[in-house]
Amino acid sequence: MPGPVVVDAMGGDHGTAETVAGAVAALREHGVPVVLVGRAGRVRRELARHGACGEIEVVHAEGVVPMGERGTGALAPDTSIAVGCELLRRGAGAAFVSAGSTGAVASCAVRSVGRADGVLRPALAVALPQATGGASVLLDAGVTCDPTPEMVAGFALLGVSYARRVLGAATPSVGLLSIGSEPGKGSRLTRRAEELLRRLPVRFRGPIEGHDVLAGAVDVIVTDGFTGNVVLKNVEGTVRAVLAMAARAQDARPEALREVARRYDPETHGGAALLGLRRTVVVAHGSSRARTIARACAVARDLAAGGVPERVPGPPGPAAHQAAVPDGQGRGR
Amino acid sequence: MPGPVVVDAMGGDHGTAETVAGAVAALREHGVPVVLVGRAGRVRRELARHGACGEIEVVHAEGVVPMGERGTGALAPDTSIAVGCELLRRGAGAAFVSAGSTGAVASCAVRSVGRADGVLRPALAVALPQATGGASVLLDAGVTCDPTPEMVAGFALLGVSYARRVLGAATPSVGLLSIGSEPGKGSRLTRRAEELLRRLPVRFRGPIEGHDVLAGAVDVIVTDGFTGNVVLKNVEGTVRAVLAMAARAQDARPEALREVARRYDPETHGGAALLGLRRTVVVAHGSSRARTIARACAVARDLAAGGVPERVPGPPGPAAHQAAVPDGQGRGR
Repeated sequence: MPGPVVVDAMGGDHGTAETVAGAVAALREHGVPVVLVGRAGRVRRELARHGACGEIEVVHAEGVVPMGERGTGALAPDTSIAVGCELLRRGAGAAFVSAGSTGAVASCAVRSVGRADGVLRPALAVALPQATGGASVLLDAGVTCDPTPEMVAGFALLGVSYARRVLGAATPSVGLLSIGSEPGKGSRLTRRAEELLRRLPVRFRGPIEGHDVLAGAVDVIVTDGFTGNVVLKNVEGTVRAVLAMAARAQDARPEALREVARRYDPETHGGAALLGLRRTVVVAHGSSRARTIARACAVARDLAAGGVPERVPGPPGPAAHQAAVPDGQGRGR
Repeated sequence: MPGPVVVDAMGGDHGTAETVAGAVAALREHGVPVVLVGRAGRVRRELARHGACGEIEVVHAEGVVPMGERGTGALAPDTSIAVGCELLRRGAGAAFVSAGSTGAVASCAVRSVGRADGVLRPALAVALPQATGGASVLLDAGVTCDPTPEMVAGFALLGVSYARRVLGAATPSVGLLSIGSEPGKGSRLTRRAEELLRRLPVRFRGPIEGHDVLAGAVDVIVTDGFTGNVVLKNVEGTVRAVLAMAARAQDARPEALREVARRYDPETHGGAALLGLRRTVVVAHGSSRARTIARACAVARDLAAGGVPERVPGPPGPAAHQAAVPDGQGRGR
C-alpha cells in the first residue's frame, strides 16, 4: 500500500478522543499505518494517553467542519477534511478516513483528489450482510439524492468494481432497486436507468425490490442516494426493532440474536466507501467510536491495496452508449 | 356500515379458491357481510365447496385484470376490478377489497368512485407495528412513484385521518421520511414537501430517517410511493433475514421470534388502505391467501365504519397555502 491511512481526528459525534483511540487501535491491532489530521495539540494529548506519540504522525489542521455541513461549497483549506484530502491528493496517504459529514467529505474529495476517469458522480457504497451468507454492496448510500439516470447506471460500474475487489465476486450480478419487475414499473429515474443498465457490460439482473436487499439476490444493489440512505438506515432500524420485540417477548436475548444485531450495527460495518474517486475515501458513521474508526481504517487499507478506486469504464451518456462500452474489461460476463 | 364489503374474487396470485375462502371466512369468522365479484360459475363452484352458496351474493364479471397491469389506462368495464368499483360508486357496497394489481385498482377506483374533496392524489397506507408497541401508518406505499411536493404534503392529511380513525391517535404526529434533519438535507422533493408540511395544520415533527420507521417516532410517516414501497418491502425482507440468520445460528426459532415474524408478515397485516378516495378501498398483497383476504375484509369494514375516507382538508397548492388551512378540523393541535 503506497503510504499510510490518513485519519480525520476531528470528525464524528464522539470527538477527538474516539478518533485518536481508533487510529491507535488501527495501528496496534490491525497493523495499519496511520497519520492523524487535526488540531495538533489536542491530538497529541490524546495520543499521549495511549503512549502513542512516537508511533503516529500528526498533521496540524486548525479548522473543524461542523457535522451538519452539507458540503456544497468549498471547505476552508485549513479544515481537517480539506487537509486530509490534500494529503491524499499529494500521494502522502493511501486512503482517507473520516467520520465527519458525508456531504462535506464527498464534496471536498471530489474537488481535491477528483473523480476517476469516466465517473460522472461518486457514490457511497456499503457492504450489507446477506441472509444467504456473504455480502452485497449497496450504492449510492447517500451522496446524491437526485442523480440522473446516467449517474445511477454509472454506480453499477463502481459497484461491480467493489464487489470484485472487496467481496470477491468474480462476475458480480447487478440489480436496480425498484418496486416491481413488470415493464413500466418504477419511477421515471429507475425506468430510464434500467434502459441504460441493460446496455452496460455488466451482469444486470433487472429490477429488484425492497425485500431482496438482504436476500442475496444480487452482488450489487444500485439505487439513488436518497433511497439508498433510507434503506440502509431502515435495515438497521428494523433489526433493532425485531430484537427489541423479541427481547420483550422472552425477557432474554439469545446469543444468536446478539450476533445478528452485531452484524447490522452501523458501529461494526467499518464505514462506507466513497466510490468513483481517484483515491480511497471511507466515510465512517457519524456515531463511530474507536473500534469503528479502527475497522474503517482496516477497510480503507484493504480498499486501497485492492485498487478499488480503479479506472472504471465510463457510464453511458445520453448519446454515447456505444462509446461507453469498455475495451476489454467486463466483456463476455 | 352502509352495505357489504365487495370482494374481487379474481385478484391475487393464488386464484379464486383463496379469495372465495377468504370471503367465506370474513363472513363466518369476522361477521363481515360480503359480496363476491368475478366469473360467477367459477365463484359459485368455490362457494359450494364451503356450503356457502346461500350466504354470499355473487356479481358476475367476465374479465380478469392481469397482475402485471400498471393501471394507467381505463380497465375494460367487465373486469372484476371495474365491476367492483362500480358497485362501490353506486353505493351497493361499503368497501372494495382486491388482491389484484395495486396500480390497476388505484387507477380504476379514482376513475370510478373518484377522489375525495381536496385530495390531489390517493395514497396507499400501511400500518406498521412499532418497536415501542402500537403502530404507525406509512404512506404512500406504492401508488405514485413520482409525486409532486404538494401531493406528498397531502398524504400527511390522509395519514392523520387514518391514524385518528384506525390507530386511535388523538392528535397524530407526522414525520417526513428523509435522510437527515439538518436544513437542506434530503431530495428536491422532500425539501419542498417539508416547507409545505410546516404550513399544514398537522403536528409535523420534521424529517425522520430510515431507522425511525419502526421506532415509534411518529404516528404518520409520509413519503413518495417509490420510497414507501421499497421501505415497506425492506422491512419485511429484513425481518425475514434476521430470523433466517438467527435460526441458522441456533438451530431453532424461539416462539418470540415467530411472533415477530408474524407481525411483519405481509400475509397478516390485512391489506393496505387506498386513501384519498370517496370510498374505502383496501389493496391486499398479491400473495394473499384466505386468512389475509378475510383480515382485509375486516379492515375494510372497520375503515368504512370509521369513516376513514372522510372529507380531508385540501393539500397546499403552490399559491394557495392559506386557503388550504381547514376551517376547524385539526386546528390548535
